[in-house]
Parts: sequence; structure tokens; C-alpha cells
Amino acid sequence: MNRDIKISAVRVTPIAFRDGPLLNAAGIHEPWALRAIVELESSDGRVGISETYGDEPMLRVLEQARALVLGLSPFALNAMEQRVRATIKPSPGAIEFELAPGSHTAKNAAKVVSTFEVAMLDLQGQIVGAPIVDLLGGAVRPAVPYSAYLFFKYAEHIDKPYAPDAWGEGISPGQIVAQARRMIELYGFQSIKLKGGVFEPTHEIACMRALHQAFPGLPLRLDPNANWSLETSIKAAPELDELLEYYEDPTPGLAGMAELAKHTPLPLATNMVITTMDDFRRGAAMGSVKVLLSDHHYWGGLRLTQTLARMCALWDLGMSMHSNSHLGISLMAMTHVAASIPNLTYACDTHYPWQEEEVIKGGRIKFVEGAVPVPTTPGLGVELDRARLVELHEQYLRCGVRSRDDLTQMRKYDPQFSGKTPRF
Amino acid sequence: MNRDIKISAVRVTPIAFRDGPLLNAAGIHEPWALRAIVELESSDGRVGISETYGDEPMLRVLEQARALVLGLSPFALNAMEQRVRATIKPSPGAIEFELAPGSHTAKNAAKVVSTFEVAMLDLQGQIVGAPIVDLLGGAVRPAVPYSAYLFFKYAEHIDKPYAPDAWGEGISPGQIVAQARRMIELYGFQSIKLKGGVFEPTHEIACMRALHQAFPGLPLRLDPNANWSLETSIKAAPELDELLEYYEDPTPGLAGMAELAKHTPLPLATNMVITTMDDFRRGAAMGSVKVLLSDHHYWGGLRLTQTLARMCALWDLGMSMHSNSHLGISLMAMTHVAASIPNLTYACDTHYPWQEEEVIKGGRIKFVEGAVPVPTTPGLGVELDRARLVELHEQYLRCGVRSRDDLTQMRKYDPQFSGKTPRF
Repeated sequence: MNRDIKISAVRVTPIAFRDGPLLNAAGIHEPWALRAIVELESSDGRVGISETYGDEPMLRVLEQARALVLGLSPFALNAMEQRVRATIKPSPGAIEFELAPGSHTAKNAAKVVSTFEVAMLDLQGQIVGAPIVDLLGGAVRPAVPYSAYLFFKYAEHIDKPYAPDAWGEGISPGQIVAQARRMIELYGFQSIKLKGGVFEPTHEIACMRALHQAFPGLPLRLDPNANWSLETSIKAAPELDELLEYYEDPTPGLAGMAELAKHTPLPLATNMVITTMDDFRRGAAMGSVKVLLSDHHYWGGLRLTQTLARMCALWDLGMSMHSNSHLGISLMAMTHVAASIPNLTYACDTHYPWQEEEVIKGGRIKFVEGAVPVPTTPGLGVELDRARLVELHEQYLRCGVRSRDDLTQMRKYDPQFSGKTPRF
Repeated sequence: MNRDIKISAVRVTPIAFRDGPLLNAAGIHEPWALRAIVELESSDGRVGISETYGDEPMLRVLEQARALVLGLSPFALNAMEQRVRATIKPSPGAIEFELAPGSHTAKNAAKVVSTFEVAMLDLQGQIVGAPIVDLLGGAVRPAVPYSAYLFFKYAEHIDKPYAPDAWGEGISPGQIVAQARRMIELYGFQSIKLKGGVFEPTHEIACMRALHQAFPGLPLRLDPNANWSLETSIKAAPELDELLEYYEDPTPGLAGMAELAKHTPLPLATNMVITTMDDFRRGAAMGSVKVLLSDHHYWGGLRLTQTLARMCALWDLGMSMHSNSHLGISLMAMTHVAASIPNLTYACDTHYPWQEEEVIKGGRIKFVEGAVPVPTTPGLGVELDRARLVELHEQYLRCGVRSRDDLTQMRKYDPQFSGKTPRF
């Protein structure tokens, strides 16, 4: 191996892709979801790729960070992290989307480290001829299971920017069951998660019960996205006891979750009250959360996710994986790291079925029985489709969205929508 | 890279090498120190090497573990660890040397994981043509500093199995200063540690004061090896305040250290009260220890040491490195991992100057200004000298030592020596 190979160029391309009218605690998804595609070019002519957040504050941070990785060896992950942590700080005054931990600018350094790390590992893998998972200690499973991630949704965006998606409306228990059925038929998922916090808890519980009846034996999860008060969460718990595999972020704050834990045998899961290593340190001792949803994009990379996994094992926390709207580069990075972690035993979240577009060669990634087979080809195992990258970038330039804002979007449907949480 | 390469053979060779009459809290070093040299042969004809404990209980565990690594890819570190942790358990009734955390059989799985991991990383590095440090995220420093590790010692072993070493007696403050001077002249060390817990604290403090006067500005450490009572440790603290960089394991137990911490501004360091991840979990919240001495041999490998480093950073602990009597393979493994860890900011311990023999080609490793330059050649950067391996193995067969027993050895000098701790 040539140890003189250096990173010689950094390209950041913001893209926008169609996203469904998916409802959540904050409001509703806009018609366009943003990501940034980052390419690191090496002095021997290879390109390592990565996918991360594409909102404006993140693009500014990536612009600032660009110089930090130039000239480094693709193997210099530790030096890269040192440089980034020394230089990249929170962006004061930047727009943050409170319910999406990936938008918090306090995580700027972690997000940049993660972005560069994935692209550098892609380069490493290409250079040595090994899939990224081999550079993470090897796979402990041949495929990574994901769960069917259901959303309450409207049939169509209010602004009608393009033809409606194929999923139709998803509001009634029957519609949610139909959504699950379609997703399972298409992907083979063997567990189901519903993003809740949208309608009255009684309605959401009715949906879970309908899913339980329609798919007996399949593990179910409900995520009210911290939109239920502690009282509501406690009251709902007995009805959910027999239905759920875990109860994800029903109520805000670690103290609220800790109190709730006293009232239910259900394991509580979170990607909201523990989203940084500092949160882990502070929260671990409370023992209220039993399942942590990791996300390499904002925790700080694939290796950091492995560290987190060791800490979860040590503090007796189960481990699953969180997602945002994303394309195949992120899915592959998630798959490599999840394959390497023995105690990542819950099927991971993914928004992937909600996206129709792709930026990688060969189009959308195939699932087999609800799982993504772990790549065996060098690096990430996926490559950029440059024509699609150009198209998705042009879509970004045209679409007008620059930072995710589910609240303002929701007010187009309901001008009275307060966005105040917990709503129920 | 050929992903079909498998581990096809495991060889474990116990060796013995000359060790000085070094005094410690438990007694005195025997004339022969034991290690095991582990070789993993790959199906493409390479050999990855590792060095670990050579006592009989460990040899039995390695024998049991041998089958677990056969047939695995050298890249399958996670699968290897899974197998080892599922199979290797503590050895009930095995002899343990209480003051040496590496002898605890509760750490059997961690010790085996570490042994195999180093040899597998050596194979990986050879296969891809990269030094191990590159596979650990790259070096953040070009050389790893070690400290001058001083011992109280007799001029000669009571059993006179071979000619006396060149260090002479080391008992009085003047002799300890002379020992330090010789070691610094030979190796260039820029910090000094004295293994204490041997003589009256007033004598050991006098030695530290003499070192302070002889080497102004050099960081100093004293390690009474938990042989001082809490009361003695508290009483000694003010005298050590201005002398020490850190105060290592003066008194036994986390509770004792926590109480001591209230009485001194000196950072307390340990390789005794926190020696496993479980200890860390339990002890971290107490905040009494400020510096952790890691040791890949018993914590569970190079990658686990990196995880530990992240946890130390998170819980605001400094990090240094512990050692036992060892040869160059261990020194190189320590150097690779220490080079990869940004917050391993204290010079590491090493017994290396006390050994005269070597098992690697080219003989003893050279220090430059007290540091070991990080290898840039593939794998560990050192290879077995097979002739020397045979000689050191024959020495093992002849020497009669099978498990370290500093107490029985001490009773040859002083039949009344109780070994009861804390002695002072």
C-alpha cells in the first residue's frame, strides 16, 4: 500500500429529492428533503463518498471544514478528528429543528467527523481492496435487518409540486395496516415502527392494535416523538404493554423518561434524550432508557458508533439505529457499521422506502427479507451516479428549500397549528 | 486483497527471560519472567505475532482458545471477540497474583481477545501493507514517550542463577538517583516513575525528593502499589504535592482512593482499582481517580484501549499506560495503540529497560529521546527471531518458574515477610 496517498480535493454537493407528506410531532415533511453528498478525491485518483445533512447551516460548516481534511492520508482518521474537533464549533444563531438531533449545531464537529470518516473509510477500502466492514473488525452478521418505518401521511403535498406518491393516505388504522402491508411486500421487513405524536394517543394506540392483529408476532414500536406529556405517556403505557417491543421517546426529557420508567415494564427507547456522548455520561446512571437509537451521522461516525455500542453493552442498554430521510450512501454506511456490532440486535430504522430517487449507480439498493446484505466489494460498495448527482443538485437549486422546516409547512395545511410540544 | 485468507495455525510458545531482583509491595521479582509468544499463521503463509502472559493458567486458557480463531479471516476481529467471550470464562481455583491485574482469571476472555487481536492486526497490516497504527485510525504523534521506570532492587538474586545485572543495588536515595541517571542516559526518558510500597514511606518520599533535586523539571510519579494505608497515604500527600505529576495507587480500593482524593490536590492514578470496563462503569461516577493506566494485554486489546480512551476523555480522566515485564512485541503493540490515541498524554510505563533479552529480529528496540518511533513498515513492524524463540523457550523449560510468585521469592530473603498489605 502506498502510504503517500493524500486527500487532494473535497467536493460538497447539496441535493434535494422528493419526500412524502409525512406527518410528525413537529408538523409535516416538505416536498423536498435535503442532503449533502461529500466526495474526497485522493492523489491516486480515487473518490471516497459520504452522505450527510444538506441544510444551510451544515453546508456552511462543511465549507469551513473542507481545508481540515485536505492533505491528510485517507488512513489519518484520528488526526482528522483532532483537527475537526479543534476547529469546528457550534454555529450560534443557526436554525435548528428541535426534534431532529442531527440539526443541532452543538453537534457540528461530530457531524463533520462522521461525514469525512465515511468517505475516508471508503477510500481506505478501495485502496486496500476491502469492504468498510472489514476495516471495522469484520461483519458479525451477513445482512442488516431494518424495520418497516410507517408514517401517518396525507395522500399528497398541499403545494402539489409533483404527482402524488404511490402510498396514498395513511391516517386510519386500516390505512396504516395497508401501508405496512405494502412496505412489507416490497421489502420483506420483519418488524414495524410507527412514527406517532401526530394524532390523539387513543387513535395511535388503535393503529398499533390494528398492526398487532394484522401482523401477529412481528415486533412493533411506537415513537410519539416526545409529543405526549408524562401523564399521557403513563396512561398509555398499560395499553401498549402487550403490543410493543419498545416504547420510543413518548415524553420529553430524561427526567420525564425516568419517571415514566417507574410506571411501565416496557423498555423505553430514545434518540432524543441521549444524543451525544455527554448525554450518555449524564444519563447512563439514571437507568431509565433501555434502548438507544444510534445514528453515525450525528454521534460522530462509524467508529464512534462502535464505541457507543461497547458503552451500551456495558451499561446494559439495547441498541437500535435512528434515521432521517436519506439515500443509499447513508444506508450503506449504516449497514457496514451495524454489521460490525454484535449488540446491535434490534432492526434499524430507515426512511429509505419513502424515497424514490437515488444518487448511486445501479439505482436503489435491494433489500432481502427486510435486510440489506453487507457489501463484499471494496469500500462502501456503492458509487456515485454523476448524472443523477447533477439532476438532484439542480433539483436542490430549484426547490427553494434550504433548511428543514416541518412547522411552517404544516401551517400551510392548518394555519392554527402551534407546533407546541408536548401536544397531547 | 484476498478475502479468502484464513487463519490456518496457532502456535503458543512459553518463554522465560532474565529479570532483575526488583522489589515491590508483593515481594521481589523472581530471576525469570514468563511470557507467551503467540503466532497466527495465515493460509497465504504469513505469520502474525503477539506477546502475552506466560503463566500456567494463561497457557491453559490459550490452549482452550486456540480453536476459536482457526478458520477466521484475520479481519474478523469482531467475530473472534464474540467467540472468545462466549467460550472463555474465569478459571476457578487458578493462582492469581493479586497486585498484578493481568493475572486475574476473571480477565481471561479479555486477555485472549487482546492476544489474538494483536496477531490478527499484524496479519492485516502485512496483507494490506500498512502499519497497525494505520488500521487504528492513524498516528497522532510520530513517537510514543515512555517514562524511566525505577525500582528498589538488590544487586543480585539470592539464588544467583546468573551474573548480576549492570544496575547494581537500588535502595538509598543516592542509588535511586544513580539508577535514574543511568536509565535516562541509555534511553533519554523525560519523566520518572518509582515503584514504591517497599520501604517506609519516609524513605520513599526522600527518594522522590532526591529525584526532584537531581532532575529538576522532569515529571515524577510514585506508585506505592496499594501498600500504604489510607491514613499513611493522606499523611504523605502534602509532602508529595510539589514533587509528583500523579500519585499512583497509594492505597487499596476505590473507596480508599475516593477518600484520599478529598485530602490532596494531587491527581490520583490507578491500574489497580479500575482494571476492567465494569470497574470503569462503577468507578467513573466516584470521580476519585484522575488518571487511568491502560494496558491492552488485560483490558482487551488495542481497539478496546481506544474505546477506553474515549471514555476517559468523556469522564475527564487522564490516560497513561501500565506495564509488566515484557519484550519488544508488547512494546510495539503498546506503541501502535498509544500513537493512535490523542488523549494518551502521559508518558507510558515500560519495564523494557529491565530486560536484556529479546525475541525479535534485530535485537532490542531503540528509544529516541525516551520515545519509541511509531513503525511505518507493515503490521507490528517487528518479526520473530526463531533462534532466539527456541533459546528462550528452552530457558522456560529449564527455569522451573510456572506462575509468578513474588511473595515466595521474597521469603527466601526474609522468611518473616508476611506479604500482607497495606504494610505501611
